[in-house]
Amino acid sequence: MPGNIIGQVFRLTTFGESHGAGIGGVVDGCPAGLHIDMMAIQTELDRRRPGGTTLGTTRQEADRVEILSGVMDGVSLGTPIAFLIRNADARSSDYDALKDVYRPGHADRTWEGKYGIRDHRGGGRSSARETAARVVGGAIARQLLAFQGVQVGAYVAQVGEVRTTGSYAELDLATVWDNEVRTADPSVVTRMSGLIEQVRAEGDSIGGRITCIARGVPPGLGEPVFDKLHADLGKAMLSINAVKGFAIGNGFDSIVQRGSQNNDAVTPTGNRTNRSGGIQGGISNGEDIVFDVAFKPVSTIAKAQDTVDRAGAPVVLQAQGRHDPCVVPRAVPIVEAMACLVLADHLLRQRASRVR
Amino acid sequence: MPGNIIGQVFRLTTFGESHGAGIGGVVDGCPAGLHIDMMAIQTELDRRRPGGTTLGTTRQEADRVEILSGVMDGVSLGTPIAFLIRNADARSSDYDALKDVYRPGHADRTWEGKYGIRDHRGGGRSSARETAARVVGGAIARQLLAFQGVQVGAYVAQVGEVRTTGSYAELDLATVWDNEVRTADPSVVTRMSGLIEQVRAEGDSIGGRITCIARGVPPGLGEPVFDKLHADLGKAMLSINAVKGFAIGNGFDSIVQRGSQNNDAVTPTGNRTNRSGGIQGGISNGEDIVFDVAFKPVSTIAKAQDTVDRAGAPVVLQAQGRHDPCVVPRAVPIVEAMACLVLADHLLRQRASRVR
Amino acid sequence: MPGNIIGQVFRLTTFGESHGAGIGGVVDGCPAGLHIDMMAIQTELDRRRPGGTTLGTTRQEADRVEILSGVMDGVSLGTPIAFLIRNADARSSDYDALKDVYRPGHADRTWEGKYGIRDHRGGGRSSARETAARVVGGAIARQLLAFQGVQVGAYVAQVGEVRTTGSYAELDLATVWDNEVRTADPSVVTRMSGLIEQVRAEGDSIGGRITCIARGVPPGLGEPVFDKLHADLGKAMLSINAVKGFAIGNGFDSIVQRGSQNNDAVTPTGNRTNRSGGIQGGISNGEDIVFDVAFKPVSTIAKAQDTVDRAGAPVVLQAQGRHDPCVVPRAVPIVEAMACLVLADHLLRQRASRVR
Amino acid sequence: MPGNIIGQVFRLTTFGESHGAGIGGVVDGCPAGLHIDMMAIQTELDRRRPGGTTLGTTRQEADRVEILSGVMDGVSLGTPIAFLIRNADARSSDYDALKDVYRPGHADRTWEGKYGIRDHRGGGRSSARETAARVVGGAIARQLLAFQGVQVGAYVAQVGEVRTTGSYAELDLATVWDNEVRTADPSVVTRMSGLIEQVRAEGDSIGGRITCIARGVPPGLGEPVFDKLHADLGKAMLSINAVKGFAIGNGFDSIVQRGSQNNDAVTPTGNRTNRSGGIQGGISNGEDIVFDVAFKPVSTIAKAQDTVDRAGAPVVLQAQGRHDPCVVPRAVPIVEAMACLVLADHLLRQRASRVR
Repeated sequence: MPGNIIGQVFRLTTFGESHGAGIGGVVDGCPAGLHIDMMAIQTELDRRRPGGTTLGTTRQEADRVEILSGVMDGVSLGTPIAFLIRNADARSSDYDALKDVYRPGHADRTWEGKYGIRDHRGGGRSSARETAARVVGGAIARQLLAFQGVQVGAYVAQVGEVRTTGSYAELDLATVWDNEVRTADPSVVTRMSGLIEQVRAEGDSIGGRITCIARGVPPGLGEPVFDKLHADLGKAMLSINAVKGFAIGNGFDSIVQRGSQNNDAVTPTGNRTNRSGGIQGGISNGEDIVFDVAFKPVSTIAKAQDTVDRAGAPVVLQAQGRHDPCVVPRAVPIVEAMACLVLADHLLRQRASRVR
Repeated sequence: MPGNIIGQVFRLTTFGESHGAGIGGVVDGCPAGLHIDMMAIQTELDRRRPGGTTLGTTRQEADRVEILSGVMDGVSLGTPIAFLIRNADARSSDYDALKDVYRPGHADRTWEGKYGIRDHRGGGRSSARETAARVVGGAIARQLLAFQGVQVGAYVAQVGEVRTTGSYAELDLATVWDNEVRTADPSVVTRMSGLIEQVRAEGDSIGGRITCIARGVPPGLGEPVFDKLHADLGKAMLSINAVKGFAIGNGFDSIVQRGSQNNDAVTPTGNRTNRSGGIQGGISNGEDIVFDVAFKPVSTIAKAQDTVDRAGAPVVLQAQGRHDPCVVPRAVPIVEAMACLVLADHLLRQRASRVR
Repeated sequence: MPGNIIGQVFRLTTFGESHGAGIGGVVDGCPAGLHIDMMAIQTELDRRRPGGTTLGTTRQEADRVEILSGVMDGVSLGTPIAFLIRNADARSSDYDALKDVYRPGHADRTWEGKYGIRDHRGGGRSSARETAARVVGGAIARQLLAFQGVQVGAYVAQVGEVRTTGSYAELDLATVWDNEVRTADPSVVTRMSGLIEQVRAEGDSIGGRITCIARGVPPGLGEPVFDKLHADLGKAMLSINAVKGFAIGNGFDSIVQRGSQNNDAVTPTGNRTNRSGGIQGGISNGEDIVFDVAFKPVSTIAKAQDTVDRAGAPVVLQAQGRHDPCVVPRAVPIVEAMACLVLADHLLRQRASRVR
Repeated sequence: MPGNIIGQVFRLTTFGESHGAGIGGVVDGCPAGLHIDMMAIQTELDRRRPGGTTLGTTRQEADRVEILSGVMDGVSLGTPIAFLIRNADARSSDYDALKDVYRPGHADRTWEGKYGIRDHRGGGRSSARETAARVVGGAIARQLLAFQGVQVGAYVAQVGEVRTTGSYAELDLATVWDNEVRTADPSVVTRMSGLIEQVRAEGDSIGGRITCIARGVPPGLGEPVFDKLHADLGKAMLSINAVKGFAIGNGFDSIVQRGSQNNDAVTPTGNRTNRSGGIQGGISNGEDIVFDVAFKPVSTIAKAQDTVDRAGAPVVLQAQGRHDPCVVPRAVPIVEAMACLVLADHLLRQRASRVR
């Protein structure tokens, strides 16, 4: 029972290894009659691209997406929308040294344990390159959502100890793409980028946190019992490489709250606060949906690390090549894409909830 | 597209409203030939029962589970195992006052917005009573897991600001059922229970956190890309009432770590540390699987709260009746049940990963 | 990966063994706000009941259905509708002789081969008694369909060599429940029932064919490519006990036709003929949907048959007890139920096909 | 809820329109470690190709399949195997005349009714060209089956009134690819091909029937209740373009049989006959699986036909271009492919049926 499909009605299948022929996917369930903006899809993809920010890896991947089916004259046909991104910059030789070594923090050993075989080149399918296909699928989902008035935006809320100030509601998400850290708080850009450059210089890496907001989500999305809207959002986020935690609304902070502090009082014009994150009982209430995603520091570092080879013998590993010291700036479009996929799916699922 | 099913191969469907005929479920996909211990199932159910601890609500629900199918002479047939728990203590009149009022923090308004109709009695299907069916399903999954050498245990790690001391590895999970707070650290039992009694006296409620550990999980469980083991665990936990956050391994704490600190060094005898929580790349590595679940304070409190009625007019609500001031002690068996369901499902899914 | 669920959006799970506690099911995905007519459900069930016609078995099963969830004050809540039919007339001792014998034509040997264990009492879950749950699920689906103007009816079109005369369009389906053969052609009732009584007297059984018609099906139901409407109907029919064949429209007769004879000419007011059976390219065209289902003669007969026991030794088997000599009269409500389930599912699936 | 996916564990998604960029698919769930024979895949595809037999259309489609992922050094990785067949011979202008006309017997009108938009060029996604992707998926499934000792073969058993003589067991399936009619009975080749040439000369078309056999299928495949092996086979066959009927074993012929004639007597060395077609109660019994598939005459004919245009006005249509007068010779590899897909899926599903 493979796990390469997400969604029930609006459904994305991805395929591809980091250093195979290409990465791609199939969006099955996009309704007919949607105007598909190809430029917008490519723009999303460019934002995820290594080299898209000066803070990331210097690999220049020429990620051009080709739509293979499902769209005619710029309009969706209701049939599967397949797409392909050829792998161009595939320096497989960079990875020869890693063929018989398990990198700490990576999926090398677990993947080989599961399948008895693995594509060691750049992590194969466990590589974050797979997320390029998610970004394309998410970009299509975003266009369906936009048609229904839903907007999704994310920003880097924390790099190491450096955090944005104030709540999400006080920040201007339009500024995210103006800075290379992809944060919405101009006052912390320099400190965040400085920290990233510092750990890069140290041959190390650092973790981070992304906050994501969905506005204009109609009330009623989310299915009880197991497919609560925040449960599906959580699964989608936790499926992103390097993600270690998910929190809806005030999340882990709610642990130390009293109910009298934590409940959002209801008023005739809406909830007075939004500690719940826009969801009650797993169903959207029409307010902003807000959640946080925790990313660990990138596992690949230039510092020496203890590990073992395939024979089980101890090895000291020191990574070569070009790597991100902090994944969150490039992960912003991925978080947005996954949120769009989940919301588009629930938007269509919702259509079957009432007799009419 | 309803959301009342969890799992792909080992699959639980639940049904039932809080004050209807009963709560129940169907386990579809339990392999044939498993010895089913009925006593053990009932024991799990008793642990979740209101009144099971003196710290919870004083409602005495006589939850007796009846197996309707799929088991003959104590052995699973490979066919669906359906079960039913009749609703006995259904004081619907307790809820008449709430027919036209939306309780803050509850699913009343979102549910009615979605379906145009709701069972207001005790929350209907959005009631935590639904989790009784999860506990039964989880108890069956646990017996399948035990057959394969997997053990799952959870404990209350935090109530408000009161936390267990030390890491999970230093605690004895066998002590959890000896104290009514359901913690594994005897040194904090008094403080935790004291805090719960205090908020009860105040007519308020308090949040908490549960840590769950799975031992003996074979390497190789978890499916790339979207069905990573911790992604499915996260979804399962986030689907539990009042859960606001999920973290695998060191979770949100990893944000402030350097990669050189955070990576688990690999040695010939296993990983030196277990910050990853037993999973790399979404696949189990054979070490302990460890995760945390954040619960908000219970929404139902005796204090006065602002809300609105169905007509949209402002109302001041002050809850009557018997309610938990803190949900985590009773949520321990629910967290365990959901973990068992996810692991049993992935155990069977794993069988299709290799040609053989 | 169990096979006890049918449907994607409107979804029925069934459970239960012939001689266990009961037979039942869960309808997941019935939209909220549907008036549920309990009497109509029971009426459907009574039509399937052994003893419901004098031509069938003389077992008197007191099949009373109890709704356990999902309905309040006669209206669907949008939550799972679970139901239970207790097994009353469970003469398990009738089957003791069969514990170690594989009945020819039955699932005894294959079932035991698959699971290593089987409930031999009355066939366990492989018994046609399981179809009682399908009839209940289908009755709920029928009420959803009726709300949308869709009507489903079936009749016995053939018993052995005896066939109805003329096409379905010339018959009055309202007459089906007036005769015990469940045919729509009064002119063949006597010959059909005579043949059934004759084979009964011989200790033998006979096959038959059922024709089913769905009227008022809106154009557009059915999903390309694999979930064509007639493909899903075919699977649903082939899943009924004793079914050996399925044909949409003119089915196997089309083999010997020329395209110029077989195509339905299109006119401004609809198709001139309906050889296609109301479906083109897997999608309903708004005309009557018509299909045929072939049933083999019942495997259980009073005549002596060669078989083997569990040890593999040859045995001569001569069935005792009460059995149907011909299954088709009682299968009419089952065929209708399965058709209703498929159509209700596609009715809801269709809602996601267009952007607006 | 789209219908472009078949299978539960071994799962094929197809995509592509007849005259878009290409046709392709994703096989998700192929176990790791399978040697993939690329030549064998291409051979299967060539057998389906227009122009592959002199009896079919004269279109020369250069169908070359490219594997995009999931295979390294000729071995499956356990990850999705995506593949693409570029559309080469796309004379879209052939179809300009059909942009506003609904062809009788085709999906033109129903497709447009469903989606409000359609790709009129060569039928778009409703074209039988989509089956090229099924053949590739089936060829991979076949290699998994071969590894387990299962062999699948099909042949043309009937063209119009011309039938093969004798039962399938008397025919040599190895001869199928030696004649252009794709039959296994050399004595009817000339009559079958003569009939096809005759209807072509008349500007007409003719129906046919294919028999398919699976040998070496282990006992135990097939899932009760709804996913009986023959129910899934039936659905798979009915999803093929132009298929109107499906029969397992003696199918519709069983209607006129007595139980005493129809039952397969069981002997210590297996069943004495195989009227059941190798399946009892939906589960394989280890004998040959045998079924029949009925194909209608191709809808596209050169003769004048009454139809309507998009405005609803009557039109007389006379097809131009290159078309098959009889679809069955080219459909043989498609039937085989679908059978392989279903059997491979059930082979893997079966692994979860017992505790161990």
